[in-house]
Amino acid sequence: MTDALVSDQRAQALGRELLVGVDVGGSKIAVLVVDGDLEIRGRLVVPTPIGNPDTAADHIAATVATALETARAGIERVAAVGVGVPGRVDPDNGVVSLAVNLGWQRLPLRDQLERRLGVPCAIENDVRAAAAGIRERRLLGEVEDFVYLSVGTGISAGVVLGGQLYRGTRGLAGEVGHIVVDADGPVCSCGLRGCLEMLASGPAIARLADDAIRSGRQSTLATCPTITAIDVHAAAATGDALAAEIVADAGRALARAIHGLVMTYDVERVIVGGGVAGAGRPFLASIETALDATRASSELAAEMLEPGIVELLPDGSDTGAWGAITVARSIDGSVDGQRRWSHAMP
Amino acid sequence: MTDALVSDQRAQALGRELLVGVDVGGSKIAVLVVDGDLEIRGRLVVPTPIGNPDTAADHIAATVATALETARAGIERVAAVGVGVPGRVDPDNGVVSLAVNLGWQRLPLRDQLERRLGVPCAIENDVRAAAAGIRERRLLGEVEDFVYLSVGTGISAGVVLGGQLYRGTRGLAGEVGHIVVDADGPVCSCGLRGCLEMLASGPAIARLADDAIRSGRQSTLATCPTITAIDVHAAAATGDALAAEIVADAGRALARAIHGLVMTYDVERVIVGGGVAGAGRPFLASIETALDATRASSELAAEMLEPGIVELLPDGSDTGAWGAITVARSIDGSVDGQRRWSHAMP
Repeated sequence: MTDALVSDQRAQALGRELLVGVDVGGSKIAVLVVDGDLEIRGRLVVPTPIGNPDTAADHIAATVATALETARAGIERVAAVGVGVPGRVDPDNGVVSLAVNLGWQRLPLRDQLERRLGVPCAIENDVRAAAAGIRERRLLGEVEDFVYLSVGTGISAGVVLGGQLYRGTRGLAGEVGHIVVDADGPVCSCGLRGCLEMLASGPAIARLADDAIRSGRQSTLATCPTITAIDVHAAAATGDALAAEIVADAGRALARAIHGLVMTYDVERVIVGGGVAGAGRPFLASIETALDATRASSELAAEMLEPGIVELLPDGSDTGAWGAITVARSIDGSVDGQRRWSHAMP
Repeated sequence: MTDALVSDQRAQALGRELLVGVDVGGSKIAVLVVDGDLEIRGRLVVPTPIGNPDTAADHIAATVATALETARAGIERVAAVGVGVPGRVDPDNGVVSLAVNLGWQRLPLRDQLERRLGVPCAIENDVRAAAAGIRERRLLGEVEDFVYLSVGTGISAGVVLGGQLYRGTRGLAGEVGHIVVDADGPVCSCGLRGCLEMLASGPAIARLADDAIRSGRQSTLATCPTITAIDVHAAAATGDALAAEIVADAGRALARAIHGLVMTYDVERVIVGGGVAGAGRPFLASIETALDATRASSELAAEMLEPGIVELLPDGSDTGAWGAITVARSIDGSVDGQRRWSHAMP
């Protein structure tokens, strides 16, 4: 009998039927606890940032413990923990090589968590995990080829082809935040000019509003103590001219990126989410207006960008934490002997 | 016994061990005849264009017959015929829906050819077929994720992911010729502005030279009766300032597209070919110069665009006809009972 089987049987005997998904963000940690039927048993959102890499694993382990309390369960009932991290992750060795917004570099998070929790852990980039989770939960029905475009502090895409998460040679497929959309645009932190992130991310939208107001443009946003991308979308929806201009420009940049994604991957659907997408319909409308202009000028573009190809991630769908659950499910041999978790992530 | 098996056994009994690959181009038809060990038994290049859709199948069938003469074989020795067509092709129903440069529309080429030749035929887009052929012949060694970027009359890409041809939802993955590279660029025939094809295809390069000379720019190209993209690259290599400028601009546009392809697909290699790539080293150098500038300004871009990521298709590799051979091999049940052709195209 192999070690894995022994451990499977032990897990079964102990009733290790729970899975924990942890979505680590720049300003909060969201935890979901589900059972073998994917019923939610507990959830927790802690709005504290974890910056310090030396205490990150302690922080996450403590949050998992508190989340389990909401599920009235202990760690001995947990089969696996999946973690989504906003940054560059190597799922094979469990190391976060770089998470700029968290200030982490070469952090062996998986091993650190396994030592603290005593259960198998797996980590993945948050957007890729979310894309895999969207597929696993059939949020788009039976669509097998799609891109999940996350627009927030950064912009990147998780790509699902033929129903499977596609990672690419270096695990960086979908790094569209640093595709050049406007070669004459502002210089990005990556060093190139006019990257998509410089034109349409949350910080970019806020910066554009700030700069314009500072240079004397009139706007209702001038009264905001700190302008966010959500504020700009809200102001645009109420007719603020400056805000409307900024939102339209960002929508055009995103539409160009979406057009490029559809022309290269020929996917059936592009689902948009992330912090900026939290602005809701005005956000989607800014993209659709720009796509309509593209459709109107080109028959080929109209065919590729069929109506409804871009979809807004439904509100309250907890994409990040569900994606982390999918990551937990991907751990081979960590679940019960019947391998009930058949939709293993590639 | 199934019909397919009966037909397999007949094929074996009759010695149907040859495969024919036909590459249909705007100005020539190239045919390759190979045996079961992929040894070349015959080849033929006919430099006549086939425009008329009503006589296209007759023309191709006659060319196949002549090519078989060079192999000293008759059609009764042929197991399958594969055809690559520069245009939009549905491999499932064998119809060329649109081949702009040939003037074809909704042409049921596969059935027409099967009626004339009496052997199973299959058709595919020429660039996708070429990409599958590059993989099957291991032209890049064991590289499993790559893009074949064809730069000629049009620009498009064949995408191989995980060792398999990736076609996308509508069979249009890799249609990068109509990705917008310069939003302020000239209007493309597709209706959009600044598509890659308007900046770097063969006709675009020739047009830019023509226009400049007509508007009074000095150039050694002024003496050419008809300027081609190859002429422009040759003039650039000998120090002609106008030609060098045009070649550098086209190289920049191609480098931006390659950067975008690598950021989205995260492929290990981009192999460039097609008519314009026939200019050889000066063509590759124009791309590399632009990539070097991108690498110099961005660490991320330098990591993704590692040295040697872009490769020029080796001269005389008959990519189109070999791609068509791969298409022929993809026909199920068309080959001998031992199914020697194991690398079926997906």
